[in-house]
Amino acid sequence: MYTYEYLFDFTKQVFIKIGCSTHDAELIANVFLAAELRGLSSHGMLRIKDYYQLWEANRVNTKPNIHIVHETQSTAVVDGDGAIGMVAATRSMEIAIEKAGKAGSGWVSTRGSNHYGIAGYYAMMALKHDMIGISMTNANPLVAPTFSISRLLGTNPIAVAIPAGEQPPFIADFATTPIARGKLAVAEKKGEKTLLGLVQDKNGNPTDDPTILKEGGSMLTLGGDYEHGSHKGYCLSALVDIFSAVLSGANFGPFVPPSVAYLPVLDENVGEGTGHFFGAMRIDAFQPADHFKSKMDEWIKTFRNAKSAPGKPHVKIPGDIEREKELVIRKNGIQVLPAIVKDMKEIADKLGIEFEVKSFEF
Amino acid sequence: MYTYEYLFDFTKQVFIKIGCSTHDAELIANVFLAAELRGLSSHGMLRIKDYYQLWEANRVNTKPNIHIVHETQSTAVVDGDGAIGMVAATRSMEIAIEKAGKAGSGWVSTRGSNHYGIAGYYAMMALKHDMIGISMTNANPLVAPTFSISRLLGTNPIAVAIPAGEQPPFIADFATTPIARGKLAVAEKKGEKTLLGLVQDKNGNPTDDPTILKEGGSMLTLGGDYEHGSHKGYCLSALVDIFSAVLSGANFGPFVPPSVAYLPVLDENVGEGTGHFFGAMRIDAFQPADHFKSKMDEWIKTFRNAKSAPGKPHVKIPGDIEREKELVIRKNGIQVLPAIVKDMKEIADKLGIEFEVKSFEF
Repeated sequence: MYTYEYLFDFTKQVFIKIGCSTHDAELIANVFLAAELRGLSSHGMLRIKDYYQLWEANRVNTKPNIHIVHETQSTAVVDGDGAIGMVAATRSMEIAIEKAGKAGSGWVSTRGSNHYGIAGYYAMMALKHDMIGISMTNANPLVAPTFSISRLLGTNPIAVAIPAGEQPPFIADFATTPIARGKLAVAEKKGEKTLLGLVQDKNGNPTDDPTILKEGGSMLTLGGDYEHGSHKGYCLSALVDIFSAVLSGANFGPFVPPSVAYLPVLDENVGEGTGHFFGAMRIDAFQPADHFKSKMDEWIKTFRNAKSAPGKPHVKIPGDIEREKELVIRKNGIQVLPAIVKDMKEIADKLGIEFEVKSFEF
Repeated sequence: MYTYEYLFDFTKQVFIKIGCSTHDAELIANVFLAAELRGLSSHGMLRIKDYYQLWEANRVNTKPNIHIVHETQSTAVVDGDGAIGMVAATRSMEIAIEKAGKAGSGWVSTRGSNHYGIAGYYAMMALKHDMIGISMTNANPLVAPTFSISRLLGTNPIAVAIPAGEQPPFIADFATTPIARGKLAVAEKKGEKTLLGLVQDKNGNPTDDPTILKEGGSMLTLGGDYEHGSHKGYCLSALVDIFSAVLSGANFGPFVPPSVAYLPVLDENVGEGTGHFFGAMRIDAFQPADHFKSKMDEWIKTFRNAKSAPGKPHVKIPGDIEREKELVIRKNGIQVLPAIVKDMKEIADKLGIEFEVKSFEF
């Protein structure tokens, strides 16, 4: 087990060594560690190697000139200048929050960025300002629209964080596919089949093979098949793509650049880098903040009191599961898988920083 | 078959007779007829009787004082004062558009309204202003959150309309359930079973019985079951409810008032009427409008060129199906089901206006 502070400091040192400012390295460490705390390790330490290799391949800019390209009172387009996603995204969300402070709401579409980690982090930035936060991003194409076998969309997540009063905040953070891609990788590593209704083979046939993406298969959109509303998942994913990339001037759909260096740079660009979209709405731009929060408490309690189906768990409020995990992880420490520890040690050695390889059991 | 003009004029006359201004009656007729043209007859002439009966029961206000309760440069809360939904919604979307014209974006949460017809109508209002339009509404509770058997949410639709250049606009308009409720009614009328994965019985068991809602059953959220992401559909539906009702001060979740007079007024209120949420974003608040539109053309063409799975139709762009239906219906006229024609004739007789019962074949 590692402490939060140890991994935060290690992450910060790595990014300082590859050229980031202390400020930016801390921003990046914040997002990586938020993922670990919330039990989303697929977006935590695992990704340090990806970014390290992108930097080695000269595919990210650790000294970016992040700037506003165009703006109105409540909107902006931000150019990330090839930044590490967490840096461009944090700055963009700060701008959305600043605009909301003045105009009631703020909306920022960002281009020239890279993989930004967990979508929920940026949405949650709004909470301490008594604002609703919204965050979404496009991503490497793995998902086929309804009826198709072409991979045109990413898992394109949407996150929305809403303040409450006595209750913890409502925090939705979800891919617009039935499951996150990481769950396929877990099934593959365990040698297990996956459920039907998540992926299809290269000809569009249903399959339970979690390795099918390596053989030309694709992920399905939320809904699974047309009869169960997959076209609605396709709409959602398309909206994320358009808000993130067409509004900003980033690469859309199949042109989103790979977030790992072992995949080659694409031949064709239709914009700059990866795109994100952020929103912030001041709750007192609609209702007095205390009134809104007490109404959210009422909403949350109404849903907590829902009757469960026999044998099923209690109804959750979005954010409950991650918050419960965070309590445990903050107490017990952060477990990092052996393969990832090995990667971290290699990076530490190359960069000349210290990293303690800890023993652990499973 | 009826012409657009005939049904528009009839609808307008009905609403004038029950006390609406000519202006409001025309707004209402616009929305009813837009539904018929787009082939969404479940939100067309069928609903005139519902509104007529709500008026008879003194449950809608045909002379509302629709007004802004609170506002900032880019946001507002609108009180619909018990108006017919189409009137409160059209005025609210106009305010969102006006605010976007000045501040780049405009966001309106509306309370004290009623069933507003098709969500897409209001989103599409933004298109002629070169804006992206967003519309959502909560609705009568029929849907159970993941793991639950309590009906806490409506089919809570989301609509987003995005301008393009040479291509027709992108128009997504979808319920956050696998299918719209109307499709269950169609299966019931035909005496057919429905698919599994759409509804559950009162104990949460899977069922293919389309009449199950009458026996304590509930609709599932988009995704169907937890393993296929139903919690994501639950998140979406919850977001629509919170944006529409908690932000505005309308009734949320299980407290949304019935949109038909044969269901009693609920004992408990947590706000005013039904809630909606509207957004408008000027495309030139992000990119020069022509540039954005040509990029949307490129996006649309990329998706039109997707490879279909063998035996499957071409990939659709959201809005294609409804636009194709509109072309046919504008040419051939609007077909109204016999039972609905009968209702319309009864209403016409009661109100002392003319209505021609036309013969037709199926």
